[in-house]
Amino acid sequence: MSISDILDGKLTEKEVEIKGWIVTKRSSGGVQFLVIRDGTGTIQSTIHKDEVAEKIFQDADKLTQESSIIIEGIVKEDKRAPGGYEVRVKDLQLVHLAAQEYPIGKKEHGVDFLMGVRQLWIRSPRQIAILKVRAEVIKACKDFLDERGFTLTDSPILTPSAVEGVATLFEVPYFGDKAFLTQSGQLYVEAAIAAFGKVYCFGPTFRAERSKTSRHLTEFWMVEPEMAFFTFEDNLKLQEEMVTYIVKRTLEKRKRELEVLKRDVRPLKKAEPPFDRISYTEAIEMLQKAGYRIEWGEDLGAPHEKFVSLKFEKPVFVHRYPTKVRAFYMQPDPDDPKLVLCADLMAPEGYGEIIGGSERIHDLKLLEQRIEEFGLPKEAYEWYLDLRRYGSVPHSGFGLGIERTVMWICKLKHIRETIPFPRTMKRVYP
Amino acid sequence: MSISDILDGKLTEKEVEIKGWIVTKRSSGGVQFLVIRDGTGTIQSTIHKDEVAEKIFQDADKLTQESSIIIEGIVKEDKRAPGGYEVRVKDLQLVHLAAQEYPIGKKEHGVDFLMGVRQLWIRSPRQIAILKVRAEVIKACKDFLDERGFTLTDSPILTPSAVEGVATLFEVPYFGDKAFLTQSGQLYVEAAIAAFGKVYCFGPTFRAERSKTSRHLTEFWMVEPEMAFFTFEDNLKLQEEMVTYIVKRTLEKRKRELEVLKRDVRPLKKAEPPFDRISYTEAIEMLQKAGYRIEWGEDLGAPHEKFVSLKFEKPVFVHRYPTKVRAFYMQPDPDDPKLVLCADLMAPEGYGEIIGGSERIHDLKLLEQRIEEFGLPKEAYEWYLDLRRYGSVPHSGFGLGIERTVMWICKLKHIRETIPFPRTMKRVYP
Repeated sequence: MSISDILDGKLTEKEVEIKGWIVTKRSSGGVQFLVIRDGTGTIQSTIHKDEVAEKIFQDADKLTQESSIIIEGIVKEDKRAPGGYEVRVKDLQLVHLAAQEYPIGKKEHGVDFLMGVRQLWIRSPRQIAILKVRAEVIKACKDFLDERGFTLTDSPILTPSAVEGVATLFEVPYFGDKAFLTQSGQLYVEAAIAAFGKVYCFGPTFRAERSKTSRHLTEFWMVEPEMAFFTFEDNLKLQEEMVTYIVKRTLEKRKRELEVLKRDVRPLKKAEPPFDRISYTEAIEMLQKAGYRIEWGEDLGAPHEKFVSLKFEKPVFVHRYPTKVRAFYMQPDPDDPKLVLCADLMAPEGYGEIIGGSERIHDLKLLEQRIEEFGLPKEAYEWYLDLRRYGSVPHSGFGLGIERTVMWICKLKHIRETIPFPRTMKRVYP
Repeated sequence: MSISDILDGKLTEKEVEIKGWIVTKRSSGGVQFLVIRDGTGTIQSTIHKDEVAEKIFQDADKLTQESSIIIEGIVKEDKRAPGGYEVRVKDLQLVHLAAQEYPIGKKEHGVDFLMGVRQLWIRSPRQIAILKVRAEVIKACKDFLDERGFTLTDSPILTPSAVEGVATLFEVPYFGDKAFLTQSGQLYVEAAIAAFGKVYCFGPTFRAERSKTSRHLTEFWMVEPEMAFFTFEDNLKLQEEMVTYIVKRTLEKRKRELEVLKRDVRPLKKAEPPFDRISYTEAIEMLQKAGYRIEWGEDLGAPHEKFVSLKFEKPVFVHRYPTKVRAFYMQPDPDDPKLVLCADLMAPEGYGEIIGGSERIHDLKLLEQRIEEFGLPKEAYEWYLDLRRYGSVPHSGFGLGIERTVMWICKLKHIRETIPFPRTMKRVYP
C-alpha cells in the first residue's frame, strides 16, 4: 500500500499500513499530527489520545524528524488535510528513532552545506520533485525513441580519443597506457547506424570544465540519437517532436511535482512544433544591435544564448554556425561552405542550449581534410573513417542534455539540483 | 518503409522504397540477387535484366559488399526467398560504392582482428542479433521496474571511494585531487530509498580486472534496484520475477534474433519462479564431493560457479556466504552470525553469476564495526553512515549484470560480444 494510492482516492475508508519517514510533527490538544513520506507521496496522519493505547501516544510524542515508522490506520477524506486525505492511526511501530537535530532544518542553509549532505538533502520535497521530473524526462526520451524503432546501442565510456576538444578531457591511467572519459557517444552511434538504421546511446558523459557556471557539471547524462539517411531537416523535425513529447509527458505525469516547484506551466505548454528558427548570422546581428560586442565567426557564449532564448516564446533553433567554431565532423552547408549544417536548440525563458545536433560529413575525402585542418591525430580516427569507406550514407543526429532539459522544465536557477549526486570542479563527495 | 514491415507481411504487392546496405550479391542468368539490410531486417531483392533500364542492371553488377543503396520495387511473397518475401526492383540508386575488399570476409577471422574492426563487425548478422537482444534485455529491466513503481536515480560515476575493493579501482586525476570510477552504484541508491522508497540506477560500472577470463570486461553495465523495507526473502522474490520477465520478453520479442544465433530456447523456458536454492555451505559440500579442492570460508571462483550452475535446470540462488568473503555492508544471518544474508543468482547451462544481492546492514553500530573490521577509511563513509543515523530502515537490493545476462540468454562463449564496444585490459580501441 502506498501513499500515492491514498492520494488517488483508491483507499478511502480502508485500513492501510504505511511504512515511511516523519517529515514534520505537531500536537494540538489530544491529537498528534504526523506528516509521513513513503517515497510515493506525503500524507498527514493523526493520532487521537482517546483512540490508541497509551504507549503509542507516548511513542509518537518522542518521534524526531526523519524517524522511520510503520503505521496502521483508516483512510479518511478530509478537506482540511493537505492532499485531501488523512490516515487516522490505530497502531504505530517505531522502526528507527532518528538522531536529534536533523542536519537540514527549517532555516536557510548555504549551498555548500547542502551539497555536502546531498545524501539527506535529496529527501526534501523540492529535491524529490526535481528528481521525479528527471526520471520522467529520461523515461520520455527512451519511450519516444523506442516507439519509433530506434535501437539502444551503448557507446563506451573509456575511449581512445577526444570528440569535443582536448581541453576538457579527463585522462584515466589504463594498465600502463591511458584512456579518456567520453565527452560524447556520437562517433560510436555513427558506427551503429549501419547495423540498426536508427540508434541512440544514453549514458554519462564527462567534461573537465573549469568554468564554474550555473549550467555546467563535470559529469552529465546525454541521450544521443543518430539516424541513417536523415537530412538536416529530418533531424530538426525529430528534435521538435521529441522535445514536445518530453514536455507533454512531464506536464501530464508530474503535475504534482511541478506544483511543488511552483512552476508556471503556461510557457511549457507553448512548446509545440514548429519551433522557432534563426540562423547564426541573424543571431549575431540581433546581438550586435542589442549592444553585445560579438563578431561574426565567434561562438555564442552563455549570455548570448540567454539573450536569444529570451526573444522567443518557444524553443528556438540557432542554425548554420561557422565551420571553424563547430566540431570537425559536421556537413558543410551546400549554399555556403563557410557554414555547417548544425543547429543548437535553445530552451526559452533564458535557458539556452539543451540540444546540439548536425548532419555529419559522409564523404571520406572531406572528412580526412577536416581532421587535418582541425589538427587531429588521424590514426586515432581510422576506425571512424572506415564508416566512410564502407557504405557511407548521409546521416544526422543530436545530443540532448538531460540536466539542462530538467533545469528548464523545472525552471531552476542552478543545474546542480537536477542530478542525484552532482559533480563539479570542486565536488566529488558524497 | 522498413524491411521488418515487409517481413511482417504488411506490404505484400505494395511498392516500397528501401534504403540500406548490400549484404551479399550473386547473379544467375538475367537476374541479380541482392540481399539488403536496412537496420530493421534483411531481405532478398531481385533485378531482372528485362525489367529495368540497362544502366540500373550495370550499376547493380558493380556493387560491392556493404555498398549503400536505395531501391524501389514491388514486394512479392516468395516461399523460396529467405524470410518468405522479396522485392522485385524497379529502380536502384547507388549512394556509396564501398571500397573493394571489405575487411570482414567469409573466411574465419581471429578475435583480435575482429575486435580491432568492431566498428564494422557489429554489422554482421550474428552481432546484430546479439546487440538486439541486449537492447531488449535493457528495456525489459527498465519496464519491469518502472511498472512496479521504482524511480530511476542515477548514481555518480566519479566517486570518492571504493565499493567493491580497492584492487580493481580505476583512479582519475581530478583537478589536482583524485576520484575513482564507480564499481557499483549501490551506496547511492541506498541513500535514494529514503526519498523514493523503491529505486534503481542503471549505468556503466568499472573494474580494473587483470583477469583475462571470458566473463570479465573492465567496463560493464549494471541495473541496481534498492528497496526500503524489503527483507532478504522479498529481495529474492523480486529477482525471480525480474529474471523471468526479462527471459520471457526476449523469447517473445527477439525470436528471429535467437534463431539467427541458433539458440535452443528450451532451457530458457524453464526460468520460472520459484528458482532453485542452495546455501553456500551446501555448495561447498557439493564441490568437495565432486573433488574440488575448496574449503569452507573461501569464495567461489568461476569454475565452482560453473559446476554449481550445471547441476540445476533453472537459475539457482547460492545464498548465505561467510561474512569474510562478502562486502562490508551485508546484514548478518540472524541464525548464524558467521554468515550474511546475501545471494548470488547463477544462470544455468554453466553460466554462473548474473546477480549479486543482499539485505544491507541498517544498524549504525554494526555498520561502523564492519567498516573498522574491513579496514576501510571511516571518513569516506560518513555520508553513508548518515543513512543509519536518520531514519534507518531494513532494506535490500541487488545488481544484475547486463552483459552476463545477455551472454547467457544468447548462449555465448565470450562476454565481449554482448556490448557494442567492449573494453578489456588489452583493448580500449576503437
